[in-house]
Amino acid sequence: MSFERSGAVVALAGGVGGARLVDGLDRALPDGALSVVVNTGDDFRHWGLHISPDLDTIMYTLAGLAPEERGWGIEGDTFEVLEERKRRGDAGWFQLGDRDLATHLSRTAALAGGESMTDVTELLSRSLSVSRRLLPMSDQPRPTLVVTKGGETLEFQQWLVRTQASLPVAAIEHAGDAKATPEVLDALERAELVVLCPSNPYVSIDPILSLEGVREAVLNKPTLGVSPIVRGSAVKGPLATMIPELSGKEPSARAVAEHYGELLDAFVVQDGDRFDAAFRVFETNILIRKREDRVRLASELLQLAAEIR
Amino acid sequence: MSFERSGAVVALAGGVGGARLVDGLDRALPDGALSVVVNTGDDFRHWGLHISPDLDTIMYTLAGLAPEERGWGIEGDTFEVLEERKRRGDAGWFQLGDRDLATHLSRTAALAGGESMTDVTELLSRSLSVSRRLLPMSDQPRPTLVVTKGGETLEFQQWLVRTQASLPVAAIEHAGDAKATPEVLDALERAELVVLCPSNPYVSIDPILSLEGVREAVLNKPTLGVSPIVRGSAVKGPLATMIPELSGKEPSARAVAEHYGELLDAFVVQDGDRFDAAFRVFETNILIRKREDRVRLASELLQLAAEIR
Repeated sequence: MSFERSGAVVALAGGVGGARLVDGLDRALPDGALSVVVNTGDDFRHWGLHISPDLDTIMYTLAGLAPEERGWGIEGDTFEVLEERKRRGDAGWFQLGDRDLATHLSRTAALAGGESMTDVTELLSRSLSVSRRLLPMSDQPRPTLVVTKGGETLEFQQWLVRTQASLPVAAIEHAGDAKATPEVLDALERAELVVLCPSNPYVSIDPILSLEGVREAVLNKPTLGVSPIVRGSAVKGPLATMIPELSGKEPSARAVAEHYGELLDAFVVQDGDRFDAAFRVFETNILIRKREDRVRLASELLQLAAEIR
Repeated sequence: MSFERSGAVVALAGGVGGARLVDGLDRALPDGALSVVVNTGDDFRHWGLHISPDLDTIMYTLAGLAPEERGWGIEGDTFEVLEERKRRGDAGWFQLGDRDLATHLSRTAALAGGESMTDVTELLSRSLSVSRRLLPMSDQPRPTLVVTKGGETLEFQQWLVRTQASLPVAAIEHAGDAKATPEVLDALERAELVVLCPSNPYVSIDPILSLEGVREAVLNKPTLGVSPIVRGSAVKGPLATMIPELSGKEPSARAVAEHYGELLDAFVVQDGDRFDAAFRVFETNILIRKREDRVRLASELLQLAAEIR
């Protein structure tokens, strides 16, 4: 097995698909070999708390706490605080479980105490016995904004959860003057392989690539992507409708690969989704709801990466 | 019945004893006749949240949500968030229930949004269907500090809950340059009767009296106190040991009355606790755990107040 050196593999990841592949890579690689750069463009404040949906999904998945079906929160969580808030008039549009809330309370208090997102993430990971290195893409806010065809501009979670992704999208914007952290740039610099996880390219991976220096760093490294589209549908989330809205193309693995363009040295798609390209397109089963499938796919990726290196 | 005019009665109140008498006065008086000035000297931050123990106890009591035995929180509350925090290393010294947490989250977010304690308290009261007028003594911090005989200075809740009131007390200090709110001063100005609830004089009532203008306002009004000491013991809390530590006297109703001194026009004590004084001392049953006893005592107080007026 290659890629055993400390920090050999850097995964760029967003929501559920990213979390599942990261979980597979985590198990397929020796301790220390994997660093994960996580999208914080979805971060927002709710109930006065700092919520980081993608960091939480990945932490909970690595800790074995994520539900198998639902794309958020902790399996078996209760909703006592939310129910009380709803009794007192809260609209309840964002579901916050009680155990999940413990995370947001810790994060918010630590940030208010002057700690960085990077440090807080390490602290939270440790409290959940997650030893893998999770790096928020930035220590500063970089909110992903959805500009709708109706001309509204919404925070991503407002659009995704509150409007249930019902408003057609005209553009995605990355707001705020944030920088990639030194830890992120250093991890990319030392990487032997970059993996673009099967996350939404527009709202999970692009926010990371939009930070100064990141796109160039990825371009310099062997880079392998995994399709978030399977047979024309998104495994999870609103991507299948965003692709035609934002690119004018049909939703397909190819459309995602074309979006990444010159960054890719190989792209992994579902059996039957192969297309012709200047880089290698590898077919396999990329549906990884179950943990054994995650590890199997991760091993295949590492094998493929060793071949293209 | 006298004292029916809007704002006729102002109660100064702290923890559980205060909450129970306020509950009785609330029921014995017509809508609008009672205003309650509440100690916020116990307020502190925990988990990054602004917690107001005395306001919460009074709100929950008036809402019928307070436990009959336990002196804090909401009856039948769950502790999912706390248990999760403890699993992740929280010391768990301060018990926060899930429904209770909904209160602290709302308060903290509203304060962070620039609302005053007075406005936030009205908002929270309304969300709990408490129509009675609860006035935090100040919109600014006025922490009660416990100076121990060992020379340590502790925030009140740290001393009370974390050390379980185990460290002997040398002095109580009221820190911060806070002012009574205009609403508090106005309520006292318009009052026909002031009631000093059966709360701890040192850490529940004195913090209110310590604010500029409050002591003078109370002195100008017919004022009636209720003893928090029954047959030498405190009904709840650490008062019975604080009296000898702070005054050198035995714990008794008389010691509390002497502490208030010239403020009192009458003092209500438990049957058998009567003493000689320059003001009227009235004996009755002042144990008011049950709601019917609260209303009965409140009615007796109002009758007595009408006589001394």
